[in-house]
Amino acid sequence: MAGEIANDVNHLTLSNGDSSVNSGQDEDLVDPWNVVSKSETGVDYNKLIQRFGSSKIDQELIDRFENVTGKKVHHLLRRGVFFSHRDMHTILTNYESGKPFYLYTGRGPSSSSMHLGHLIPFTLCKWLQDVFDVPLVIQLTDDEKSLWKDIKVEEAHRLAYENAKDIIAIGFDPDKTFIFSDLDYVGRCPEFYRNMIRIQKCVTFNQVKGIFGFDDSTVIGKIGFPAVQATPALSTSFPDIFGDKKIQCLIPCAIDQDPYFRMTRDVCPRLGFKKPALLHSKFFPALQGAQTKMSSSEANSTIFCCDTPKQLKNKINKHAFSGGQATVEDHRELGGNCDIDISYQYLIFFLEDDEKLEQIRKDYTSGALLTGELKKILIDVLTPVLTEHQQRRSKVTDEVLKQYMTPRKLNFK
Amino acid sequence: MAGEIANDVNHLTLSNGDSSVNSGQDEDLVDPWNVVSKSETGVDYNKLIQRFGSSKIDQELIDRFENVTGKKVHHLLRRGVFFSHRDMHTILTNYESGKPFYLYTGRGPSSSSMHLGHLIPFTLCKWLQDVFDVPLVIQLTDDEKSLWKDIKVEEAHRLAYENAKDIIAIGFDPDKTFIFSDLDYVGRCPEFYRNMIRIQKCVTFNQVKGIFGFDDSTVIGKIGFPAVQATPALSTSFPDIFGDKKIQCLIPCAIDQDPYFRMTRDVCPRLGFKKPALLHSKFFPALQGAQTKMSSSEANSTIFCCDTPKQLKNKINKHAFSGGQATVEDHRELGGNCDIDISYQYLIFFLEDDEKLEQIRKDYTSGALLTGELKKILIDVLTPVLTEHQQRRSKVTDEVLKQYMTPRKLNFK
Repeated sequence: MAGEIANDVNHLTLSNGDSSVNSGQDEDLVDPWNVVSKSETGVDYNKLIQRFGSSKIDQELIDRFENVTGKKVHHLLRRGVFFSHRDMHTILTNYESGKPFYLYTGRGPSSSSMHLGHLIPFTLCKWLQDVFDVPLVIQLTDDEKSLWKDIKVEEAHRLAYENAKDIIAIGFDPDKTFIFSDLDYVGRCPEFYRNMIRIQKCVTFNQVKGIFGFDDSTVIGKIGFPAVQATPALSTSFPDIFGDKKIQCLIPCAIDQDPYFRMTRDVCPRLGFKKPALLHSKFFPALQGAQTKMSSSEANSTIFCCDTPKQLKNKINKHAFSGGQATVEDHRELGGNCDIDISYQYLIFFLEDDEKLEQIRKDYTSGALLTGELKKILIDVLTPVLTEHQQRRSKVTDEVLKQYMTPRKLNFK
Repeated sequence: MAGEIANDVNHLTLSNGDSSVNSGQDEDLVDPWNVVSKSETGVDYNKLIQRFGSSKIDQELIDRFENVTGKKVHHLLRRGVFFSHRDMHTILTNYESGKPFYLYTGRGPSSSSMHLGHLIPFTLCKWLQDVFDVPLVIQLTDDEKSLWKDIKVEEAHRLAYENAKDIIAIGFDPDKTFIFSDLDYVGRCPEFYRNMIRIQKCVTFNQVKGIFGFDDSTVIGKIGFPAVQATPALSTSFPDIFGDKKIQCLIPCAIDQDPYFRMTRDVCPRLGFKKPALLHSKFFPALQGAQTKMSSSEANSTIFCCDTPKQLKNKINKHAFSGGQATVEDHRELGGNCDIDISYQYLIFFLEDDEKLEQIRKDYTSGALLTGELKKILIDVLTPVLTEHQQRRSKVTDEVLKQYMTPRKLNFK
């Protein structure tokens, strides 16, 4: 999956690939390669729901989640980090009547270390896997990265394996999780390639042009790639896991990946598959502010999973955009603005305790809490997140890697 | 490889994908999906050499062939059925200095039986394999046929195996021949998929648009496909045979496939591979005349490898276009025209005895030989060709099929 800023695409299209309705001048730019907002509070997600034609994750859906699973929903759901969905009600209804589903998400391995933002969809995936007891397939699109970036096939493949270690460190159940590199798996599973061809037979250049902003100078690998990202939504692409059973999938991902899956949802019924359901997350903002998302290609705006406590501390203190006032006096008097304060925003993603978070919001807004103090809280929250992640990652041996990445039968209900 | 007439393409471009130089009004239409000439004698092959920018197979090259191999060249070469080449001198020079090469050819399996025309490139391949003692890889482009024709993936795959039986019946050395279906092999060999991606990264939509006449309504599978046909020209796509060695290949094929390999020759040096050499054959004409080539989708104009002697006899007597006169009297007086007589044309392909062929030409031209008699000669030549082919094909068990189609080490110098 793409997650970086590329220079060759500057289109945004609405649902169903209708290229006539491009992003207006004052609208946010959101596609698989670009996230740029003109607002300090970042992308207007309500507008995005309208433009993409998805549905809001509302209290009714949250309540259903809790009724069906008997568990409190994950804070990423209850705080609206995952804010939009497609067909999630269908997944829950089917689950209630005993019909299985599986999870599919992915990652475009463009640097050897993942950053904090990359953890978000995976974190929800782990929760969903644990709560629903379902299999999860994770696609590492090293082929895509080689096509889009100035990266050789060999290097993209190596990065996929580096990223797989980070993903495994999140703690997925090895009995229920299959991680694959496209550059391995497409060439190891004829069923996958056959589904790719079936999908590529259903989609014209006109369609991908509209959805992804391709033009005549686009290389043919890029033009075909959307089908590669669509293929894991067809359960028969994983015969070791699902045999020839057609099972619906649920895709948690950042909203910028939705164009791929709008296309996928268009094609699936024509091939006799159910449309994949989706859970869309907001972007994890860059340290410098919510106008752009965190990106591996901007080291200063990014907290990597491999950063040391010192690096973490320095980056937050130096770069995290503050919603506070210019002087302590002003801040005490006027208070800070949590809506644009990056440290506070990061706490929404990573501080699990709702009451604590609310207290911090109140204190910062009133001016009782200073920017330096807020940054200290964030550093204290994130330091163990990183160090524990690094500890778990260091235990991912080649043997463990092989275990997750070998096509095999998984154990699930 | 494509070999049928499709409706969605009506372009012809010259070498190097220069789409600005399309076929003129009075020129022959020749591309991977169309062969249409306005002349009774068929395509003007000298013009084609000029337009495609290839080289004529001249007496000098024929002499070199015989010097290097110490053998008389095959009648398909000495009679100019293979009439054009690219870099064949390089192959011979390298062979003389002990540098290896391999053969690559293919077939697009669109019907369960191959026809006489399909045998031509394979017949030369067998001779080349025997004479040079080199490995041969044969690509069955079932993925292509599924994309271009109204054929399901499963059916295209089945047809590939049916066609493989016909190909094996030609008598290739099992120790030196690997036959593969794309729908199997792309999904069984990561190195193949990786080379596909490498090629797809080098080719833009603009280029394939020019070369293959694609437009915005073309499905993305077709747009990516030229890279699939290019990939076997990279020896590392066959690690079981060549390991990671970069070995030049020689591609015998009908001239309509040249656009694929012009593209391939463009890309190879950029990936550190030698350009593939080519030997181009003329088309095998349809029974009704040389304006079009034989095509499986036109049963009446086609002699299938599975036709019975009776079917063969009927088709030739009923449909083979005659270069003779309207009455016996006129024929005796004016003589026949071998240049447009399909029965005579077929003898060029299938009658090995040069003297006999020359005598027939003289007799038919003078009027001594009547059309019915010429047809009888052709029937007598082709009947054992078909029956012996059918006998050999009937011996191709699933075990034999598996032998040829399993990726494996081959034996060669």
